Amino acid sequence: MSTRGPYRTGRRRREQLIDVAVGVFAELGYAGGSIRDIADRAGVSHSTLIKHFGSKENLLVAVLAEWDRRTVQAGLADVDGLAYFRRLPAVMAAHRHNRGLLELFTTIAAEASAPTHPAHAFIAQRYTRNLATLAGHLRSAVDAGDVAPMTDADIQTEVRLLTATLDGIGLQWLLDPSTDLEACVSAYVHRAIAAWQRA
Amino acid sequence: MSTRGPYRTGRRRREQLIDVAVGVFAELGYAGGSIRDIADRAGVSHSTLIKHFGSKENLLVAVLAEWDRRTVQAGLADVDGLAYFRRLPAVMAAHRHNRGLLELFTTIAAEASAPTHPAHAFIAQRYTRNLATLAGHLRSAVDAGDVAPMTDADIQTEVRLLTATLDGIGLQWLLDPSTDLEACVSAYVHRAIAAWQRA
Repeated sequence: MSTRGPYRTGRRRREQLIDVAVGVFAELGYAGGSIRDIADRAGVSHSTLIKHFGSKENLLVAVLAEWDRRTVQAGLADVDGLAYFRRLPAVMAAHRHNRGLLELFTTIAAEASAPTHPAHAFIAQRYTRNLATLAGHLRSAVDAGDVAPMTDADIQTEVRLLTATLDGIGLQWLLDPSTDLEACVSAYVHRAIAAWQRA
Repeated sequence: MSTRGPYRTGRRRREQLIDVAVGVFAELGYAGGSIRDIADRAGVSHSTLIKHFGSKENLLVAVLAEWDRRTVQAGLADVDGLAYFRRLPAVMAAHRHNRGLLELFTTIAAEASAPTHPAHAFIAQRYTRNLATLAGHLRSAVDAGDVAPMTDADIQTEVRLLTATLDGIGLQWLLDPSTDLEACVSAYVHRAIAAWQRA
Protein backbone atom coordinates (compact mmCIF):
# COMPACT_ATOMS: atom_id res chain seq x y z
CA MET A 1 0.00 0.00 0.00
CA SER A 2 1.39 3.40 -0.94
CA THR A 3 0.89 6.22 1.53
CA ARG A 4 1.72 9.87 1.13
CA GLY A 5 4.91 11.22 2.76
CA PRO A 6 3.30 13.56 5.30
CA TYR A 7 0.91 10.83 6.50
CA ARG A 8 3.79 8.40 6.87
CA THR A 9 5.87 10.99 8.74
CA GLY A 10 2.95 11.72 11.07
CA ARG A 11 2.50 8.03 11.75
CA ARG A 12 6.19 7.52 12.46
CA ARG A 13 6.17 10.52 14.81
CA ARG A 14 3.12 9.07 16.57
CA GLU A 15 4.93 5.74 17.04
CA GLN A 16 7.96 7.55 18.48
CA LEU A 17 5.71 9.40 20.94
CA ILE A 18 4.07 6.10 21.97
CA ASP A 19 7.54 4.61 22.58
CA VAL A 20 8.41 7.52 24.85
CA ALA A 21 5.06 7.21 26.65
CA VAL A 22 5.54 3.46 27.17
CA GLY A 23 8.94 4.22 28.75
CA VAL A 24 7.52 6.91 31.03
CA PHE A 25 4.62 4.77 32.29
CA ALA A 26 6.85 1.68 32.63
CA GLU A 27 9.15 3.69 34.88
CA LEU A 28 6.70 5.89 36.77
CA GLY A 29 3.38 4.04 36.63
CA TYR A 30 -0.09 5.45 36.14
CA ALA A 31 0.00 7.63 39.23
CA GLY A 32 3.56 8.89 38.70
CA GLY A 33 3.69 9.33 34.91
CA SER A 34 2.25 12.53 33.44
CA ILE A 35 1.59 13.90 29.98
CA ARG A 36 4.08 16.63 30.91
CA ASP A 37 6.85 13.99 31.49
CA ILE A 38 6.15 12.42 28.11
CA ALA A 39 6.15 15.77 26.30
CA ASP A 40 9.40 16.80 28.05
CA ARG A 41 11.19 13.56 27.15
CA ALA A 42 9.94 13.68 23.57
CA GLY A 43 10.95 17.32 23.25
CA VAL A 44 7.48 18.48 22.20
CA SER A 45 4.96 20.78 23.83
CA HIS A 46 2.05 19.46 25.90
CA SER A 47 -0.41 20.68 23.25
CA THR A 48 1.52 19.09 20.35
CA LEU A 49 1.49 15.77 22.21
CA ILE A 50 -2.23 15.92 22.88
CA LYS A 51 -2.87 17.00 19.24
CA HIS A 52 -1.25 13.75 18.05
CA PHE A 53 -3.70 11.66 20.08
CA GLY A 54 -6.77 13.83 20.53
CA SER A 55 -6.96 13.35 24.32
CA LYS A 56 -5.03 12.00 27.28
CA GLU A 57 -7.23 8.88 27.28
CA ASN A 58 -6.44 8.16 23.63
CA LEU A 59 -2.73 8.37 24.42
CA LEU A 60 -3.15 5.93 27.34
CA VAL A 61 -5.11 3.58 25.09
CA ALA A 62 -2.34 3.76 22.44
CA VAL A 63 0.22 2.89 25.13
CA LEU A 64 -1.83 -0.13 26.25
CA ALA A 65 -2.33 -1.30 22.66
CA GLU A 66 1.44 -1.11 22.08
CA TRP A 67 2.10 -2.96 25.36
CA ASP A 68 -0.32 -5.73 24.29
CA ARG A 69 1.45 -5.98 20.94
CA ARG A 70 4.89 -6.28 22.57
CA THR A 71 3.69 -8.78 25.19
CA VAL A 72 2.18 -11.07 22.56
CA GLN A 73 5.19 -10.76 20.24
CA ALA A 74 7.59 -11.43 23.11
CA GLY A 75 6.02 -14.67 24.27
CA LEU A 76 2.83 -15.84 22.60
CA ALA A 77 3.19 -15.36 18.86
CA ASP A 78 4.56 -18.85 18.12
CA VAL A 79 2.36 -21.11 20.27
CA ASP A 80 -1.07 -22.68 19.85
CA GLY A 81 -3.49 -24.82 21.85
CA LEU A 82 -2.24 -26.07 25.25
CA ALA A 83 1.25 -24.69 24.56
CA TYR A 84 -0.30 -21.20 24.64
CA PHE A 85 -1.64 -21.74 28.17
CA ARG A 86 1.63 -23.31 29.35
CA ARG A 87 3.46 -20.16 28.24
CA LEU A 88 1.30 -17.82 30.38
CA PRO A 89 3.24 -18.11 33.69
CA ALA A 90 6.43 -16.89 31.95
CA VAL A 91 4.53 -14.08 30.22
CA MET A 92 3.09 -12.93 33.56
CA ALA A 93 6.51 -13.20 35.20
CA ALA A 94 7.87 -10.79 32.55
CA HIS A 95 5.51 -8.13 33.93
CA ARG A 96 7.89 -7.89 36.89
CA HIS A 97 10.11 -5.79 34.62
CA ASN A 98 7.18 -3.57 33.57
CA ARG A 99 5.45 -2.83 36.84
CA GLY A 100 4.40 0.64 35.69
CA LEU A 101 2.63 -0.70 32.61
CA LEU A 102 0.79 -3.36 34.60
CA GLU A 103 -0.26 -0.62 37.03
CA LEU A 104 -1.43 1.50 34.08
CA PHE A 105 -3.44 -1.36 32.59
CA THR A 106 -4.95 -2.50 35.91
CA THR A 107 -6.00 1.03 36.85
CA ILE A 108 -7.50 1.94 33.49
CA ALA A 109 -9.34 -1.39 33.22
CA ALA A 110 -10.97 -0.71 36.60
CA GLU A 111 -11.74 2.96 35.94
CA ALA A 112 -13.07 2.11 32.48
CA SER A 113 -15.59 -0.34 33.97
CA ALA A 114 -17.84 2.73 34.24
CA PRO A 115 -19.71 2.85 30.90
CA THR A 116 -19.18 6.63 30.72
CA HIS A 117 -15.35 6.40 30.89
CA PRO A 118 -13.60 7.49 27.66
CA ALA A 119 -11.59 4.22 27.51
CA HIS A 120 -14.62 1.98 28.19
CA ALA A 121 -15.04 0.83 24.57
CA PHE A 122 -11.32 0.06 24.16
CA ILE A 123 -11.14 -1.94 27.39
CA ALA A 124 -14.42 -3.80 26.79
CA GLN A 125 -13.27 -4.72 23.24
CA ARG A 126 -9.85 -5.75 24.55
CA TYR A 127 -11.51 -8.19 26.98
CA THR A 128 -13.83 -9.53 24.28
CA ARG A 129 -10.88 -10.04 21.93
CA ASN A 130 -8.63 -11.64 24.56
CA LEU A 131 -11.40 -13.98 25.71
CA ALA A 132 -11.95 -14.99 22.07
CA THR A 133 -8.21 -15.62 21.60
CA LEU A 134 -8.08 -17.82 24.71
CA ALA A 135 -11.27 -19.63 23.68
CA GLY A 136 -9.72 -20.29 20.25
CA HIS A 137 -6.66 -21.91 21.85
CA LEU A 138 -8.79 -24.02 24.16
CA ARG A 139 -11.06 -25.09 21.27
CA SER A 140 -7.95 -25.97 19.32
CA ALA A 141 -6.71 -28.14 22.22
CA VAL A 142 -10.11 -29.89 22.30
CA ASP A 143 -10.04 -30.45 18.53
CA ALA A 144 -6.51 -31.85 18.74
CA GLY A 145 -7.68 -34.32 21.40
CA ASP A 146 -5.24 -32.83 23.95
CA VAL A 147 -8.10 -32.28 26.39
CA ALA A 148 -11.56 -33.79 26.85
CA PRO A 149 -14.56 -32.48 24.84
CA MET A 150 -16.09 -29.21 26.09
CA THR A 151 -19.18 -27.20 25.23
CA ASP A 152 -18.81 -23.57 24.16
CA ALA A 153 -20.31 -22.57 27.51
CA ASP A 154 -17.65 -24.62 29.37
CA ILE A 155 -14.94 -22.93 27.29
CA GLN A 156 -16.37 -19.47 28.05
CA THR A 157 -16.32 -20.17 31.79
CA GLU A 158 -12.74 -21.49 31.58
CA VAL A 159 -11.37 -18.49 29.71
CA ARG A 160 -13.18 -16.06 32.00
CA LEU A 161 -11.70 -17.77 35.07
CA LEU A 162 -8.22 -17.79 33.56
CA THR A 163 -8.46 -14.10 32.66
CA ALA A 164 -9.72 -13.32 36.16
CA THR A 165 -6.76 -15.15 37.68
CA LEU A 166 -4.23 -13.26 35.56
CA ASP A 167 -5.83 -9.88 36.36
CA GLY A 168 -6.33 -10.59 40.04
CA ILE A 169 -2.87 -12.02 40.69
CA GLY A 170 -1.39 -9.02 38.84
CA LEU A 171 -3.26 -6.70 41.20
CA GLN A 172 -2.09 -8.64 44.28
CA TRP A 173 1.50 -8.42 43.06
CA LEU A 174 1.17 -4.65 42.55
CA LEU A 175 -0.18 -4.33 46.11
CA ASP A 176 2.35 -6.75 47.62
CA PRO A 177 5.53 -7.38 45.60
CA SER A 178 6.23 -10.53 47.65
CA THR A 179 3.40 -12.22 45.70
CA ASP A 180 4.96 -14.93 43.51
CA LEU A 181 3.33 -14.05 40.17
CA GLU A 182 4.82 -16.94 38.26
CA ALA A 183 4.20 -19.63 40.90
CA CYS A 184 0.55 -18.60 41.36
CA VAL A 185 -0.21 -18.47 37.62
CA SER A 186 1.67 -21.73 37.10
CA ALA A 187 -0.33 -23.48 39.85
CA TYR A 188 -3.56 -22.23 38.28
CA VAL A 189 -2.66 -23.22 34.71
CA HIS A 190 -1.47 -26.68 35.71
CA ARG A 191 -4.61 -27.41 37.69
CA ALA A 192 -6.84 -26.08 34.90
CA ILE A 193 -5.12 -28.22 32.26
CA ALA A 194 -5.36 -31.29 34.50
CA ALA A 195 -9.10 -30.63 34.96
CA TRP A 196 -9.61 -30.13 31.20
CA GLN A 197 -7.87 -33.42 30.52
CA ARG A 198 -9.99 -35.25 33.08
CA ALA A 199 -13.36 -33.64 32.30
CA MET B 1 -17.28 1.50 77.90
CA SER B 2 -18.70 4.93 78.72
CA THR B 3 -18.22 7.66 76.15
CA ARG B 4 -19.04 11.32 76.44
CA GLY B 5 -22.16 12.64 74.72
CA PRO B 6 -20.55 14.87 72.08
CA TYR B 7 -18.18 12.05 71.01
CA ARG B 8 -21.07 9.64 70.72
CA THR B 9 -23.13 12.18 68.76
CA GLY B 10 -20.20 12.80 66.39
CA ARG B 11 -19.78 9.09 65.88
CA ARG B 12 -23.46 8.59 65.19
CA ARG B 13 -23.44 11.48 62.72
CA ARG B 14 -20.40 9.95 61.02
CA GLU B 15 -22.24 6.63 60.68
CA GLN B 16 -25.25 8.40 59.16
CA LEU B 17 -22.98 10.14 56.64
CA ILE B 18 -21.38 6.79 55.72
CA ASP B 19 -24.86 5.32 55.17
CA VAL B 20 -25.69 8.15 52.79
CA ALA B 21 -22.34 7.75 50.99
CA VAL B 22 -22.87 3.98 50.62
CA GLY B 23 -26.25 4.71 49.02
CA VAL B 24 -24.81 7.31 46.64
CA PHE B 25 -21.93 5.11 45.46
CA ALA B 26 -24.18 2.03 45.21
CA GLU B 27 -26.46 3.98 42.90
CA LEU B 28 -24.00 6.10 40.92
CA GLY B 29 -20.67 4.24 41.13
CA TYR B 30 -17.19 5.62 41.58
CA ALA B 31 -17.29 7.68 38.40
CA GLY B 32 -20.81 9.00 38.89
CA GLY B 33 -20.97 9.57 42.66
CA SER B 34 -19.50 12.80 44.03
CA ILE B 35 -18.82 14.29 47.44
CA ARG B 36 -21.29 17.00 46.40
CA ASP B 37 -24.06 14.37 45.93
CA ILE B 38 -23.39 12.91 49.36
CA ALA B 39 -23.35 16.32 51.03
CA ASP B 40 -26.61 17.32 49.26
CA ARG B 41 -28.42 14.13 50.28
CA ALA B 42 -27.17 14.36 53.84
CA GLY B 43 -28.15 18.03 54.04
CA VAL B 44 -24.66 19.19 55.06
CA SER B 45 -22.11 21.39 53.33
CA HIS B 46 -19.23 19.99 51.33
CA SER B 47 -16.75 21.28 53.92
CA THR B 48 -18.69 19.80 56.86
CA LEU B 49 -18.71 16.43 55.13
CA ILE B 50 -14.97 16.52 54.45
CA LYS B 51 -14.34 17.72 58.04
CA HIS B 52 -15.99 14.54 59.37
CA PHE B 53 -13.55 12.35 57.41
CA GLY B 54 -10.45 14.47 56.86
CA SER B 55 -10.28 13.85 53.11
CA LYS B 56 -12.23 12.42 50.19
CA GLU B 57 -10.06 9.28 50.30
CA ASN B 58 -10.85 8.71 53.98
CA LEU B 59 -14.56 8.91 53.18
CA LEU B 60 -14.16 6.37 50.36
CA VAL B 61 -12.23 4.08 52.70
CA ALA B 62 -14.99 4.38 55.33
CA VAL B 63 -17.56 3.43 52.68
CA LEU B 64 -15.53 0.37 51.66
CA ALA B 65 -15.04 -0.70 55.28
CA GLU B 66 -18.79 -0.44 55.85
CA TRP B 67 -19.48 -2.41 52.65
CA ASP B 68 -17.08 -5.14 53.81
CA ARG B 69 -18.84 -5.28 57.17
CA ARG B 70 -22.29 -5.60 55.55
CA THR B 71 -21.12 -8.20 53.02
CA VAL B 72 -19.61 -10.40 55.71
CA GLN B 73 -22.62 -9.99 58.02
CA ALA B 74 -25.04 -10.74 55.19
CA GLY B 75 -23.50 -14.02 54.14
CA LEU B 76 -20.33 -15.18 55.85
CA ALA B 77 -20.68 -14.55 59.57
CA ASP B 78 -22.08 -18.00 60.43
CA VAL B 79 -19.92 -20.36 58.37
CA ASP B 80 -16.49 -21.95 58.84
CA GLY B 81 -14.09 -24.18 56.90
CA LEU B 82 -15.36 -25.53 53.56
CA ALA B 83 -18.83 -24.10 54.20
CA TYR B 84 -17.25 -20.64 53.99
CA PHE B 85 -15.92 -21.31 50.48
CA ARG B 86 -19.21 -22.88 49.35
CA ARG B 87 -21.01 -19.68 50.34
CA LEU B 88 -18.81 -17.44 48.14
CA PRO B 89 -20.77 -17.82 44.84
CA ALA B 90 -23.94 -16.51 46.53
CA VAL B 91 -22.02 -13.66 48.19
CA MET B 92 -20.56 -12.64 44.80
CA ALA B 93 -24.00 -12.92 43.17
CA ALA B 94 -25.33 -10.42 45.73
CA HIS B 95 -22.93 -7.83 44.26
CA ARG B 96 -25.33 -7.67 41.30
CA HIS B 97 -27.51 -5.47 43.48
CA ASN B 98 -24.58 -3.24 44.45
CA ARG B 99 -22.85 -2.62 41.15
CA GLY B 100 -21.76 0.87 42.19
CA LEU B 101 -20.01 -0.37 45.34
CA LEU B 102 -18.20 -3.12 43.44
CA GLU B 103 -17.12 -0.47 40.91
CA LEU B 104 -15.93 1.74 43.77
CA PHE B 105 -13.94 -1.08 45.37
CA THR B 106 -12.45 -2.36 42.10
CA THR B 107 -11.37 1.12 41.03
CA ILE B 108 -9.87 2.14 44.35
CA ALA B 109 -8.05 -1.19 44.75
CA ALA B 110 -6.41 -0.65 41.34
CA GLU B 111 -5.61 3.03 41.88
CA ALA B 112 -4.27 2.30 45.36
CA SER B 113 -1.79 -0.22 43.96
CA ALA B 114 0.49 2.80 43.57
CA PRO B 115 2.36 3.02 46.90
CA THR B 116 1.87 6.81 46.96
CA HIS B 117 -1.96 6.60 46.79
CA PRO B 118 -3.70 7.83 50.00
CA ALA B 119 -5.75 4.58 50.26
CA HIS B 120 -2.73 2.29 49.65
CA ALA B 121 -2.32 1.26 53.30
CA PHE B 122 -6.04 0.55 53.75
CA ILE B 123 -6.24 -1.56 50.59
CA ALA B 124 -2.99 -3.42 51.27
CA GLN B 125 -4.14 -4.22 54.84
CA ARG B 126 -7.57 -5.27 53.55
CA TYR B 127 -5.92 -7.79 51.22
CA THR B 128 -3.61 -9.06 53.97
CA ARG B 129 -6.57 -9.47 56.33
CA ASN B 130 -8.84 -11.14 53.76
CA LEU B 131 -6.09 -13.54 52.68
CA ALA B 132 -5.55 -14.42 56.35
CA THR B 133 -9.29 -15.03 56.85
CA LEU B 134 -9.44 -17.32 53.81
CA ALA B 135 -6.26 -19.11 54.91
CA GLY B 136 -7.81 -19.64 58.35
CA HIS B 137 -10.88 -21.30 56.83
CA LEU B 138 -8.78 -23.51 54.57
CA ARG B 139 -6.53 -24.49 57.50
CA SER B 140 -9.63 -25.28 59.50
CA ALA B 141 -10.90 -27.54 56.64
CA VAL B 142 -7.50 -29.31 56.63
CA ASP B 143 -7.58 -29.74 60.41
CA ALA B 144 -11.13 -31.12 60.25
CA GLY B 145 -9.97 -33.69 57.69
CA ASP B 146 -12.40 -32.28 55.08
CA VAL B 147 -9.54 -31.82 52.61
CA ALA B 148 -6.09 -33.39 52.21
CA PRO B 149 -3.08 -32.04 54.17
CA MET B 150 -1.53 -28.81 52.81
CA THR B 151 1.57 -26.81 53.60
CA ASP B 152 1.24 -23.14 54.54
CA ALA B 153 2.74 -22.26 51.15
CA ASP B 154 0.05 -24.35 49.38
CA ILE B 155 -2.62 -22.57 51.40
CA GLN B 156 -1.16 -19.15 50.53
CA THR B 157 -1.23 -19.97 46.81
CA GLU B 158 -4.82 -21.26 47.07
CA VAL B 159 -6.18 -18.19 48.84
CA ARG B 160 -4.34 -15.85 46.46
CA LEU B 161 -5.84 -17.66 43.45
CA LEU B 162 -9.32 -17.60 44.97
CA THR B 163 -9.05 -13.88 45.74
CA ALA B 164 -7.77 -13.22 42.22
CA THR B 165 -10.76 -15.09 40.77
CA LEU B 166 -13.26 -13.09 42.82
CA ASP B 167 -11.63 -9.76 41.91
CA GLY B 168 -11.13 -10.60 38.25
CA ILE B 169 -14.62 -12.02 37.66
CA GLY B 170 -16.07 -8.95 39.39
CA LEU B 171 -14.17 -6.72 36.96
CA GLN B 172 -15.37 -8.75 33.95
CA TRP B 173 -18.96 -8.46 35.15
CA LEU B 174 -18.57 -4.68 35.53
CA LEU B 175 -17.23 -4.49 31.97
CA ASP B 176 -19.79 -6.94 30.54
CA PRO B 177 -22.96 -7.48 32.58
CA SER B 178 -23.69 -10.69 30.64
CA THR B 179 -20.87 -12.34 32.65
CA ASP B 180 -22.46 -14.96 34.92
CA LEU B 181 -20.83 -13.97 38.23
CA GLU B 182 -22.35 -16.79 40.25
CA ALA B 183 -21.74 -19.58 37.70
CA CYS B 184 -18.10 -18.59 37.21
CA VAL B 185 -17.33 -18.35 40.93
CA SER B 186 -19.23 -21.56 41.57
CA ALA B 187 -17.25 -23.43 38.86
CA TYR B 188 -14.00 -22.14 40.40
CA VAL B 189 -14.91 -23.01 44.00
CA HIS B 190 -16.13 -26.51 43.12
CA ARG B 191 -12.98 -27.32 41.16
CA ALA B 192 -10.74 -25.90 43.90
CA ILE B 193 -12.47 -27.94 46.62
CA ALA B 194 -12.27 -31.10 44.47
CA ALA B 195 -8.53 -30.49 44.00
CA TRP B 196 -8.02 -29.85 47.73
CA GLN B 197 -9.79 -33.10 48.51
CA ARG B 198 -7.68 -35.04 46.03
CA ALA B 199 -4.29 -33.44 46.75
